Amino acid sequence: MAKKILKFGGTSVGSIERIQHVAKIIKKEHAANNEIIAVVSAMSGKTNELLKYSEDVSKNFDKRELDVLLSSGEQVTSALLAGALIELGIKAKSWLNWQIPILTEGDHSNARIINMNIVKINNFLSENGVVIIPGFQGISKEGNITTIGRGGSDATAVAVAKILNADSCEIYTDVDGVFSTDPNKIPLAKKIDKISYNEMLELSSLGAKVMQSSAVQTAMMYNIPLEVKSTFTDRVGTKIFDQENIDYTKSVTGVAYSKDDAKITLVGVKDKPGVAASIFEPLSKNNVNVDMVIQNISSDQKTTDLTFTVKRTDLSKAIELIKSNKKIEYLNMHHKDQVSKVSIVGAGMVSTPGITFKMFKGLAEEKINILAISTSEIKLSVIIDEDDTLNAVKKLHTVFNLD
Amino acid sequence: MAKKILKFGGTSVGSIERIQHVAKIIKKEHAANNEIIAVVSAMSGKTNELLKYSEDVSKNFDKRELDVLLSSGEQVTSALLAGALIELGIKAKSWLNWQIPILTEGDHSNARIINMNIVKINNFLSENGVVIIPGFQGISKEGNITTIGRGGSDATAVAVAKILNADSCEIYTDVDGVFSTDPNKIPLAKKIDKISYNEMLELSSLGAKVMQSSAVQTAMMYNIPLEVKSTFTDRVGTKIFDQENIDYTKSVTGVAYSKDDAKITLVGVKDKPGVAASIFEPLSKNNVNVDMVIQNISSDQKTTDLTFTVKRTDLSKAIELIKSNKKIEYLNMHHKDQVSKVSIVGAGMVSTPGITFKMFKGLAEEKINILAISTSEIKLSVIIDEDDTLNAVKKLHTVFNLD
Repeated sequence: MAKKILKFGGTSVGSIERIQHVAKIIKKEHAANNEIIAVVSAMSGKTNELLKYSEDVSKNFDKRELDVLLSSGEQVTSALLAGALIELGIKAKSWLNWQIPILTEGDHSNARIINMNIVKINNFLSENGVVIIPGFQGISKEGNITTIGRGGSDATAVAVAKILNADSCEIYTDVDGVFSTDPNKIPLAKKIDKISYNEMLELSSLGAKVMQSSAVQTAMMYNIPLEVKSTFTDRVGTKIFDQENIDYTKSVTGVAYSKDDAKITLVGVKDKPGVAASIFEPLSKNNVNVDMVIQNISSDQKTTDLTFTVKRTDLSKAIELIKSNKKIEYLNMHHKDQVSKVSIVGAGMVSTPGITFKMFKGLAEEKINILAISTSEIKLSVIIDEDDTLNAVKKLHTVFNLD
Repeated sequence: MAKKILKFGGTSVGSIERIQHVAKIIKKEHAANNEIIAVVSAMSGKTNELLKYSEDVSKNFDKRELDVLLSSGEQVTSALLAGALIELGIKAKSWLNWQIPILTEGDHSNARIINMNIVKINNFLSENGVVIIPGFQGISKEGNITTIGRGGSDATAVAVAKILNADSCEIYTDVDGVFSTDPNKIPLAKKIDKISYNEMLELSSLGAKVMQSSAVQTAMMYNIPLEVKSTFTDRVGTKIFDQENIDYTKSVTGVAYSKDDAKITLVGVKDKPGVAASIFEPLSKNNVNVDMVIQNISSDQKTTDLTFTVKRTDLSKAIELIKSNKKIEYLNMHHKDQVSKVSIVGAGMVSTPGITFKMFKGLAEEKINILAISTSEIKLSVIIDEDDTLNAVKKLHTVFNLD
């Protein structure tokens, strides 16, 4: 007997037929002698509908009341799924967060689950009952409803897995698992059978939005085995483990891309100590996150060219902050928002020499100009022209034997 | 300073614009130095949408989960109204039933409010805050969500008025108040300024569905002054008081009609003791409610004709029960479901002679045949052909000077 957390996302419970289908998946898992805790999202579209309501009432809708409003979405799914299971002859019950309770700390709409009362839940499981928990929400010490950010049902699933000491946490979604690159754009994309938490984090931070990043981080911290799989097929999904449990046969696991970035270049910056700080400190203080930074030493060795990337939505704010700060000395500022970030990710990269060369050579063969580069232990990212994105991804997918 | 319960029904909060309009009504009442507790329904259509979901999942949807499902509707309105008030600069807070708590007893979907914790509510009111409470729901001793039946937001408003010892309870709705008859069908219908609880009960039990009957009963029991008024106009509504506080200038207050009834006549029933019991006992045991009963002594004085009415939806069941009961001796059974019940209601009737005669004369002038009659202290009902309904209502409205 295993204790399993099964999490079903918005599209998985997007209609009554789908909720009934989810009930059948749970019935099968329950019949296989597992203890089941299902964590559910709001039906797809519902959270946006509620958000739209709140925006129509106020551009600055009260955060406490927003959480009361939004939490109703998962409440509806929980009741419907419990009803569908009971209809199938299975003992089931929805447990709203205040009924357990699931305690959170932190701000409204950005809370963190810190604990839950497990006695009632374990009792119900031991009576052969299926527990249904609405994801994305909790209650504060003061007894207010809190929510834990968009996509927070993943975080609920992992937190509940940790607190209930579950054997596994399965994330049911509308794709077959994690892919070597975007399967909607690159037909040669392959489903990855096993991936490490770290790689998963890099991939999801790069736009492969299969799971919410903070949920993967929590799973990594407590070593909770995850599996991402499709609600709509019987195929095996992607298992997410600790790196040590994976035998890497390939140096690169996946190729990801995102179009969220913009590039700023400051030409002729005085090359003296503290110059970088004078540029980046005001950005940081104003919540403009700088991603990649490249500094070239100029030929005269007295000035330098500084290139960095920020979120595309932050570009005009960043430009304003630099222009208005008289302490920053430079000759010219260029900026470009039609750029994309393409990254290769793989825990096997560390032990494989020549990865960087292979990447650059591949891009050069496609005549793709690299505007900026950044590296980490398991990731290598380049900024390129947005028009070159798909070409670059396809080429790298082939170069690193992922087709 | 008065403590006021303001209840807003589904159409009053049926869109964001309407919720914002309700916030303005509350703002005005609050500015007039009143303590405001608003009780809200689900946005119109939402409860039916949720009910439809549950029916699609199961014809026999679990009652506990149904209450979890349906209660989300009023939760949404509460959060949106609180947000709209805060947007207007007013301190406001939604209080879900478990946060107060509001305790109920009785079955799911048919619970009764028995108590609530008033300390937190009164504290918030004394800090000049507006309290928003979702109607129609509560929690059980066991901590489950319960609901108190369709239209239950009226019952919540009256129960909260009683427990908080409020000065008044105002029911905001989509009509100007209680009318002398159906204003949609009879243009001469007049809004009634003052009406007694008893008359209101008779009128609403006869199809004038302005307020839920059990809420009126509770208000009557605890002598809580009610006012029914429109959310959409500034007109004065209908005040509902104890009978003693009303000076009756007219003998009849209103004319109501309903088309829910069917008539059964048993011809040639043996006229001996216990015969009525032998007919009505099996009906009662099978939850068929008998409304009016008329017994005519036959010419031979050995048999009698017995006419009675039941709900139209119970007609075939009633016929079956009579046919299958061998103890009931009769010659023939007739039945008719194309009938309607037309009633005149008025607390002034008791002290005015000749009301019955005036009613029968009026109907006779219109050549309307009376199939059955029933009387109470403040009501006189007749069963007539359904086709004659509007003619009868118009005539009686004129006869009793209500135009």
